[in-house]
Amino acid sequence: MDVERGRSDFCAAASASARAARAERQLVALDAREDAVRAFVCHDADAARRLATYTDMPLGGALIGVKDIITTEAFPTRYGLDDTNPAGRSHDAWCVARARQLGGVILGKTVCTAFAFPRPGPTTNPHDVHRSPGGSSSGSAAAVAAGFVSFAFGTQTAGSTIRPASYCGVVGFKPSFGLLPTEGIEPISPTLDHVGVFAVSPRDTWFLVSAMLLRQPEILAARRPRRVLIPWLPADLPQADGYPERYAALTPVLQAEGIEVDTVDLPVTSADFHSLQQEICYWEAARLLLTSPRMHLVPELVKLLTPYLDSGTTRYVAARRGRQALQTAFDDLAAGYDAVLLPAATGAAPFVTNTGDAVMNRVWTALHVPAITVPLWRSIEGLPLGLQLVGSLGTDRALVETAQWFHERRDAWP
Amino acid sequence: MDVERGRSDFCAAASASARAARAERQLVALDAREDAVRAFVCHDADAARRLATYTDMPLGGALIGVKDIITTEAFPTRYGLDDTNPAGRSHDAWCVARARQLGGVILGKTVCTAFAFPRPGPTTNPHDVHRSPGGSSSGSAAAVAAGFVSFAFGTQTAGSTIRPASYCGVVGFKPSFGLLPTEGIEPISPTLDHVGVFAVSPRDTWFLVSAMLLRQPEILAARRPRRVLIPWLPADLPQADGYPERYAALTPVLQAEGIEVDTVDLPVTSADFHSLQQEICYWEAARLLLTSPRMHLVPELVKLLTPYLDSGTTRYVAARRGRQALQTAFDDLAAGYDAVLLPAATGAAPFVTNTGDAVMNRVWTALHVPAITVPLWRSIEGLPLGLQLVGSLGTDRALVETAQWFHERRDAWP
Repeated sequence: MDVERGRSDFCAAASASARAARAERQLVALDAREDAVRAFVCHDADAARRLATYTDMPLGGALIGVKDIITTEAFPTRYGLDDTNPAGRSHDAWCVARARQLGGVILGKTVCTAFAFPRPGPTTNPHDVHRSPGGSSSGSAAAVAAGFVSFAFGTQTAGSTIRPASYCGVVGFKPSFGLLPTEGIEPISPTLDHVGVFAVSPRDTWFLVSAMLLRQPEILAARRPRRVLIPWLPADLPQADGYPERYAALTPVLQAEGIEVDTVDLPVTSADFHSLQQEICYWEAARLLLTSPRMHLVPELVKLLTPYLDSGTTRYVAARRGRQALQTAFDDLAAGYDAVLLPAATGAAPFVTNTGDAVMNRVWTALHVPAITVPLWRSIEGLPLGLQLVGSLGTDRALVETAQWFHERRDAWP
Repeated sequence: MDVERGRSDFCAAASASARAARAERQLVALDAREDAVRAFVCHDADAARRLATYTDMPLGGALIGVKDIITTEAFPTRYGLDDTNPAGRSHDAWCVARARQLGGVILGKTVCTAFAFPRPGPTTNPHDVHRSPGGSSSGSAAAVAAGFVSFAFGTQTAGSTIRPASYCGVVGFKPSFGLLPTEGIEPISPTLDHVGVFAVSPRDTWFLVSAMLLRQPEILAARRPRRVLIPWLPADLPQADGYPERYAALTPVLQAEGIEVDTVDLPVTSADFHSLQQEICYWEAARLLLTSPRMHLVPELVKLLTPYLDSGTTRYVAARRGRQALQTAFDDLAAGYDAVLLPAATGAAPFVTNTGDAVMNRVWTALHVPAITVPLWRSIEGLPLGLQLVGSLGTDRALVETAQWFHERRDAWP
């Protein structure tokens, strides 16, 4: 399946007719390709076609996919679980309610892995049907990549927005913790759960986020960075499919542009990359999910979490404190740069039997800092590889502006 | 109105008949006093009486009040707003669902101030009808104080659990941020919103919290502290109604018990007490509430928040970073003590025209650390004054054990 790389973004479609035409193209694409992509658990194209004609609001005519861990009025919520599980309709989660209030059209609920933990769902990668879209926001990333929607909501507790965006060749944005409320989203780990958004450009992600948070959506311009950090990464972080070469080639290209590139060490250690987020997540998730009145968990998840339920709090508290110290150290460092640049994943999309490795994402989620990925490169086999930009806490808007600059030069990177 | 001070706690009522008798006494008290106390927005005593007969579960027979900012299946949610506002039934919030699954009986929705900001509701203080119960969890504190329920859920974004508990002479407990998920609670400020619980003893609050988080509820024993911190407080923190004398008298009493008392300065400044939490809260709340599709806000709130919507993020980001640094500094200090002891409020319950001052609570909410109040003293006029115990992040269980020790010696404090 061929995926159009330079697809125009939503905020460029200023006129009502452009928006209506865009929605119609998306519904045609859905009709043609959804049988293969399987991005949606359920959707209503007819209702979306009707609603998309109201284009005079900030998000009027914007088709949106909603990860099936986020509640909506119009569709049931199954949390990626089997049909035997309880799944009622509910109120619109905050992000859904806000998007609809601004004219956004919820096309349907997108596939997520079982309870957002890594057991693959039915969704395939729009670039290669044998490849995984990543997870846990599998269907949200795939729906944007396949051109079915302009935006999709996902979540990120480990790497569930940035990783699938990278695998699917779209932009994924995880704002700073607290910027978008998780109201209406089943909690997994309260100090890690973030709302994430998918779109085809950085400025589109900000268009959506700013529309939700402010009275008017903002269309950001690209901002050329003055100074970036390309850190030395711990040697035990796996990197494959051509990532190391492409990542290394960033430095000379940026320097040739006159951009200052630093290559200092991060205060983040290999252990922080691998396990800081997990120590927090599994302890919190064990207490929430193993006692949840609302659903039956898959056996793998019960097995994974049970030791954390029975263990004491010492390791958890140590991890929470370690995070606090690291937040300050990282922010002190990152505040001196327009962005910290990192691979978004460990390689290209893996085969469909697994959803990939979140090791490049976990620690940034734990630290609550903004992260965005731009599909900058192709792997040896032609699959998307994302650049990840991470900023200090609260610099979301500036980070998106910087990401937009990388995005607009997306053909400049070897 | 006389409020029984030494009321037995729920976890002491081990037998089914004791639990059933307890629930019946509470419903009789409700019938006798609710017209004066006005703790509830709505309740269903008949349903509660029927459900309270199932006493073989961990929370069986426990009557519970739920702050009207937390959604339930059985009752509408009005967020403390006027009846003209939208108010539907919804799913049970996580804490409500979990409590019901364990046998807890939701008696009704308790009054909160309009959208949890300080405009007084109709509730009166059970100790004096002319006094405020505090806010914003006004009805939850009052319902426990009046003996209508064994437990109540509240929230704390500034001081909305600890302060009303202190005014009403009950125990209020705000666990570490993240311990109890806020799912199903309308967000005000995502990095500050906490679930809080009210009960008549510290060990009862932990009985409820541990029941929700673990497979079995725990009944904690009192734990005599070895070392406490009674810090020098910034001179501009208001303290009235006999608080300064009672607080000062703690030191010699504890020392006479052989407990080590330190009086070092906190790393928390006067500015941190007054404004750190507000800088974060108002910026976050402006973005959520002024754009909320679900409700009409009271004019005071619109006026308060609007400047924060239009201002830039510089002050907010500075406050978030200041918090990070202070979290580490405070935890490093507090980890050396069984508790940091502070007044829970600035004085006794004010008259009903206002809900009091949260200056003694805001910073602990911002720092995400556990805080609990025990009704240790009486004011010059005989109203309750609470001692506040604060711990380092994640030490919730130990802090409740220490609080239980103070509670069991509640007649020992001059």
